[in-house]
Amino acid sequence: MTDGSDTRPASDIATRKIDHLDIVLRQDAEPGASATGLDRIVFEHVALPEISLADIDLSVPFLGRRLAAPLLISSMTGGPDRASRINRHLAEAAEHLKIALGVGSQRVAIEGRGGGGLDRRLRDLAPSVPLLANIGGAQFVLGYGEDEAMRAVEMIGADALIVHLNPLQEAVQTGGDTDWRGVLSAIASLCSRLRVPVVVKEVGAGISPGAARRLVEAGVAAIDVAGAGGTSWAGVEAERAGDARRAAIARQFAGWGIPTARAIAEVRVACPTVPLIGSGGIRTGLDVARAIRLGADIAGQAAATLEAAETSGEAVVAHFEDVIETLRIACFCTGSASVADLRRARLIDPPDFAL
Amino acid sequence: MTDGSDTRPASDIATRKIDHLDIVLRQDAEPGASATGLDRIVFEHVALPEISLADIDLSVPFLGRRLAAPLLISSMTGGPDRASRINRHLAEAAEHLKIALGVGSQRVAIEGRGGGGLDRRLRDLAPSVPLLANIGGAQFVLGYGEDEAMRAVEMIGADALIVHLNPLQEAVQTGGDTDWRGVLSAIASLCSRLRVPVVVKEVGAGISPGAARRLVEAGVAAIDVAGAGGTSWAGVEAERAGDARRAAIARQFAGWGIPTARAIAEVRVACPTVPLIGSGGIRTGLDVARAIRLGADIAGQAAATLEAAETSGEAVVAHFEDVIETLRIACFCTGSASVADLRRARLIDPPDFAL
Amino acid sequence: MTDGSDTRPASDIATRKIDHLDIVLRQDAEPGASATGLDRIVFEHVALPEISLADIDLSVPFLGRRLAAPLLISSMTGGPDRASRINRHLAEAAEHLKIALGVGSQRVAIEGRGGGGLDRRLRDLAPSVPLLANIGGAQFVLGYGEDEAMRAVEMIGADALIVHLNPLQEAVQTGGDTDWRGVLSAIASLCSRLRVPVVVKEVGAGISPGAARRLVEAGVAAIDVAGAGGTSWAGVEAERAGDARRAAIARQFAGWGIPTARAIAEVRVACPTVPLIGSGGIRTGLDVARAIRLGADIAGQAAATLEAAETSGEAVVAHFEDVIETLRIACFCTGSASVADLRRARLIDPPDFAL
Amino acid sequence: MTDGSDTRPASDIATRKIDHLDIVLRQDAEPGASATGLDRIVFEHVALPEISLADIDLSVPFLGRRLAAPLLISSMTGGPDRASRINRHLAEAAEHLKIALGVGSQRVAIEGRGGGGLDRRLRDLAPSVPLLANIGGAQFVLGYGEDEAMRAVEMIGADALIVHLNPLQEAVQTGGDTDWRGVLSAIASLCSRLRVPVVVKEVGAGISPGAARRLVEAGVAAIDVAGAGGTSWAGVEAERAGDARRAAIARQFAGWGIPTARAIAEVRVACPTVPLIGSGGIRTGLDVARAIRLGADIAGQAAATLEAAETSGEAVVAHFEDVIETLRIACFCTGSASVADLRRARLIDPPDFAL
Ligand SMILES: Cc1cc2nc3c(=O)[nH]c(=O)nc-3n(C[C@H](O)[C@H](O)[C@H](O)COP(=O)(O)O)c2cc1C
Ligand SMILES: Cc1cc2nc3c(=O)[nH]c(=O)nc-3n(C[C@H](O)[C@H](O)[C@H](O)COP(=O)(O)O)c2cc1C
Ligand SMILES: Cc1cc2nc3c(=O)[nH]c(=O)nc-3n(C[C@H](O)[C@H](O)[C@H](O)COP(=O)(O)O)c2cc1C
Ligand SMILES: Cc1cc2nc3c(=O)[nH]c(=O)nc-3n(C[C@H](O)[C@H](O)[C@H](O)COP(=O)(O)O)c2cc1C
Repeated sequence: MTDGSDTRPASDIATRKIDHLDIVLRQDAEPGASATGLDRIVFEHVALPEISLADIDLSVPFLGRRLAAPLLISSMTGGPDRASRINRHLAEAAEHLKIALGVGSQRVAIEGRGGGGLDRRLRDLAPSVPLLANIGGAQFVLGYGEDEAMRAVEMIGADALIVHLNPLQEAVQTGGDTDWRGVLSAIASLCSRLRVPVVVKEVGAGISPGAARRLVEAGVAAIDVAGAGGTSWAGVEAERAGDARRAAIARQFAGWGIPTARAIAEVRVACPTVPLIGSGGIRTGLDVARAIRLGADIAGQAAATLEAAETSGEAVVAHFEDVIETLRIACFCTGSASVADLRRARLIDPPDFAL
Repeated sequence: MTDGSDTRPASDIATRKIDHLDIVLRQDAEPGASATGLDRIVFEHVALPEISLADIDLSVPFLGRRLAAPLLISSMTGGPDRASRINRHLAEAAEHLKIALGVGSQRVAIEGRGGGGLDRRLRDLAPSVPLLANIGGAQFVLGYGEDEAMRAVEMIGADALIVHLNPLQEAVQTGGDTDWRGVLSAIASLCSRLRVPVVVKEVGAGISPGAARRLVEAGVAAIDVAGAGGTSWAGVEAERAGDARRAAIARQFAGWGIPTARAIAEVRVACPTVPLIGSGGIRTGLDVARAIRLGADIAGQAAATLEAAETSGEAVVAHFEDVIETLRIACFCTGSASVADLRRARLIDPPDFAL
Repeated sequence: MTDGSDTRPASDIATRKIDHLDIVLRQDAEPGASATGLDRIVFEHVALPEISLADIDLSVPFLGRRLAAPLLISSMTGGPDRASRINRHLAEAAEHLKIALGVGSQRVAIEGRGGGGLDRRLRDLAPSVPLLANIGGAQFVLGYGEDEAMRAVEMIGADALIVHLNPLQEAVQTGGDTDWRGVLSAIASLCSRLRVPVVVKEVGAGISPGAARRLVEAGVAAIDVAGAGGTSWAGVEAERAGDARRAAIARQFAGWGIPTARAIAEVRVACPTVPLIGSGGIRTGLDVARAIRLGADIAGQAAATLEAAETSGEAVVAHFEDVIETLRIACFCTGSASVADLRRARLIDPPDFAL
Repeated sequence: MTDGSDTRPASDIATRKIDHLDIVLRQDAEPGASATGLDRIVFEHVALPEISLADIDLSVPFLGRRLAAPLLISSMTGGPDRASRINRHLAEAAEHLKIALGVGSQRVAIEGRGGGGLDRRLRDLAPSVPLLANIGGAQFVLGYGEDEAMRAVEMIGADALIVHLNPLQEAVQTGGDTDWRGVLSAIASLCSRLRVPVVVKEVGAGISPGAARRLVEAGVAAIDVAGAGGTSWAGVEAERAGDARRAAIARQFAGWGIPTARAIAEVRVACPTVPLIGSGGIRTGLDVARAIRLGADIAGQAAATLEAAETSGEAVVAHFEDVIETLRIACFCTGSASVADLRRARLIDPPDFAL
């Protein structure tokens, strides 16, 4: 993710990232289990599915490739050594499972201050799946342009570039980038010039329908809501802050943001045709099913993947096989033969935003 | 209930069934007390009942016979020895109380792999009450037909055949039957050919109004919603699973399903005249009253009966006498002289689906 | 309250009543604090009351007399010795405070089986306040008529007769009176013949709007809703029952009934002009204010009075002085100079039934 | 705040005030964290703020001066020595931060019975910010008039006079002033004659829309709702009361009052243009943002300021710097470049009163 002001030495940035990983792994940054609003999405059971579980087709098109399941491993940075191991495991698993993979912020790498495994070997490990590069939106008003973007893409042979928007995270950290004037037009110009599609995402506070509309007008190829209820970056920064006052301020924003369920549903209504990634607090295959039912094309997961990602590629595969099996059963018990069918499954007592 | 794939040896199946009984008896599989939604059904007290408690008529017609109270002992399988004792106790009690009795899945017995007390002696113990045979719906796309159905019926001298639909339970267990293509048309063909009425039920995830409509069109004689909030078969399978990953997947579906209260009300609206059994988490006579008020003709109970069923026929009689006395008081305090009156009793602040 | 079947010896009945008192004093019979629904009645604060606290007029007319505050000490029976002491204390306090007093069921006394302090000395202690006699409604279909009613009234020189309706309590106790056919017409005939007004009350399960309408047509002079949320007679009987099965049945009805707040509001709408007593779980002067705001003319209190009633007349006076002071402050902070003003006080976010 | 009846010796009054401070500091008087209703005001996150955090303009006009941030340190009395230290710290901080300051009740000082630091030195410490004098509304029907008001204003060189309305606090304390006839017309006459603007506030029970309308007609220059959910004076008086019965009565009113969020929103609708102070349970800068979004022009804080106020001017500055930084981040993440923009920020699922 973003690395705050340019003036901090690269070593500091690296230390900070390790903190991130540990805090997320300790799960100190997670709000209550139902903060995403996904728990309120309850499927009507279909006692007569009239399909075969084995035949359910979970494949979806995404950024010009075909995924075997509607899943994205969401962007995660970390300190150089750890990140490089994590990225290798994730790439092996993504390739095996045929699901999409986003890498963490490439800013440190772009500026030549360390790699974190962000090079062509990653693409070699995952030749057939969508691979997404990652840069913070605020960088584009601090000097970044098409060149840096292209460098990020080429560094890993990416299919697309994710631009992440994280104004809250920047605001609650000391020395964060808090001048966001011109970010939208920078994105628009990037969309018109970059050779690969541009995807825009938040990092846990959600994309509002208004922001989504402006992004679609700016020409983005897909939106990832990354809503509230999962990893809270204000919560993470509160844990990291050396300064108690700073920590107290950050903590007040731990619950800030548009809950994932609402963000997905409202962006879908605002932008009926934009390719949409539902993420933020996706824990299980049932959450994936709910995100899709609300309008997402695929669902993204970061924090819940992290423990397996530290372990091995096999662990990541096992983790996602369970997610996929759960999703498959959800399809089965709603009589959905495909992801498209699941999007039309009937709900019990849906919240207003999901009608 | 269903026994998964045909290829498993009968001894395995028997072991599995014993597990079921113990897990249900330990009540590990029960979600929170209000998960059925029945707690939200609150009767308006009638301070001037203008009836006599002793004269309240709880009798109802069911499958051509008359029940002394609107109650069905719902289908329960178990390992051969235990099941045979349980079935004997239940039959004695059903006869004494003049209430209906459904037996557990007869698949093992049909295939000649053990009886579980499923023979003519059961009918001899309960000559005057409706006795219902039981086969899983998925069997009818795996080779079963009118013959097997008739064998189940004749084996116990049943008045009707229950076909149970349990796609979720099959999906979460290893080797379950998960090809459900053609189940509906198999049921339709069974309805048109079988000499006894066909009743269709779920096993704890509920029948939706859509499924109910299709079943009525297929010619079923009655529907048993067996909704969510009582015994959760995903929960039971999670307990049983040797494999931790499998257990974790099953556990995610422990709360899946249409809550009983809603299922009853919605099926009643969708199919105003179908004979309807309200079941799934029926604990007390007050729950029976609520199920009837929502539109059920009779209410079914499985898990809450099990402890008495293991003990003796007398214990089962005592258990249901209390249920019936509670139901009678509920009638009295709503000024209902009959089950038909109870269905029109006034409610306090009913949930939307019960209006 | 009622004493069950005629055939039980008087000594048994006396024992049972002592149980009642102790159970109520132990408060084992009280459901959660907000079960009356009164907590949802929240007054809009008036920062500019423009009245003087000292001048607030709490007096109201009731049964032809004037009360200094809109309060009734609700009917309570007990064993002979205890009841006689309690009644003396209550009468002294009622006279001192100029509030109304209802005595407990006079059935034992009418049948000459013991007095419980129910004689003319009670009226001598409370010469200037409304004094209300008490008989159970079910007695009037078991042989009671105008004569017994008059005997109850004259025994204590009462201004009116309360007929209590307690079908639930009768139903959950062994040997209770459960033939309620003809109670309404017996009440109607009593109303047309008795020389004093007839008041009808429940005992903690509430009077519905339908029942209220029928009672008004039958000619009753006032209705006391005695709704759910305070003393639960099913709860008390569950505690008392020697028989565990009987206790379990009774316990299921511990929450049965129309919550007091709703009962008051709905009866007021159904019968706009009937003198209405709001009772059932009235704990404080704030509850009195809420009951009046919902449409009651006066509020009644039984259980919360009992501890002081066992102690002394002074304790009862002190108890009600606090209730009255709280009521007065509620009037002050809603700018209500009188009970009539309080009935029009503005509420914050009122529940549907209180609109 | 008010000092009860005139007849009590000044020393008593002083003792009582120290109690107030300690009770508030122990936070015994605070109801649950969400009692203000502010927690239900949730901002829609703006992932593309298109502003610079550093450029956000928090300044607002208030009583003819300009505040650097929309904040008022709300009126607090205390015993003479403590109050004088507290007032000094608050004045230093208010001047440093350029925010408004209200002093506690000046009644004791006006009557020449002790100063509590309420003299011209206060103005000297805070020459450039709005300074507000304070007198209880009930005094104006007990003999106070323009002269006493002017004495309060001149004593500290105030820009305006706050008249506080505290009928509940007066009613629950022994010897409180409870004749409130004529308070409104006294305020009206004060407004037309006093040379400085008159602000009217409650002290924790809220101003209703009706009262606000009457106050605006009476000519007040601003209203401070001081709603329920923060400091509860009934709660404080319950703690203070020597007399257990008095304490029990006061305690019943601990939750009385119009929650702050609702009070702000409803007064704003009733009086669209009146300068409005939102206060009562404002804990953080996020609460300030919510109050402003609901319609307040500035937000006031008393209890949450007290601990810092006892410590030093620097502590108060540090406390409010954090409040302001939080408010600034809330503006940033709602894309609000100014307080006026914040008032139009989008909300998620707003309660009825905030639509
Ligand atoms: C350890 C960690 C590092 C992250 N780093 C980045 C990053 O560099 N760039 C980015 O766009 N998002 C980053 N994210 C945000 C995630 O991509 C995702 O949007 C967010 O965590 C919400 O998803 P979750 O609740 O499944 O974790 C990171 C998340 C985690 C947990
Ligand atoms: C031990 C046990 C065994 C069961 N076996 C069967 C079965 O063989 N066939 C069937 O249709 N349902 C079976 N059921 C499901 C019940 O008939 C019923 O639909 C379900 O348990 C919900 O009701 P309950 O909450 O009262 O238990 C079984 C239930 C239990 C508790
Ligand atoms: C100890 C006790 C005895 C009672 N006895 C009678 C009675 O004899 N007759 C009657 O009409 N109600 C009787 N009641 C019911 C009360 O009059 C009242 O309607 C009911 O308790 C609800 O009010 P509460 O919640 O304030 O107790 C009795 C209540 C109590 C607590
Ligand atoms: C210790 C203390 C003393 C107070 N004294 C006064 C006072 O003298 N005059 C007044 O108008 N309000 C007084 N108040 C009320 C506050 O100004 C404010 O309206 C109320 O406490 C609600 O705000 P809070 O929840 O932020 O404390 C006092 C509050 C506190 C905590």
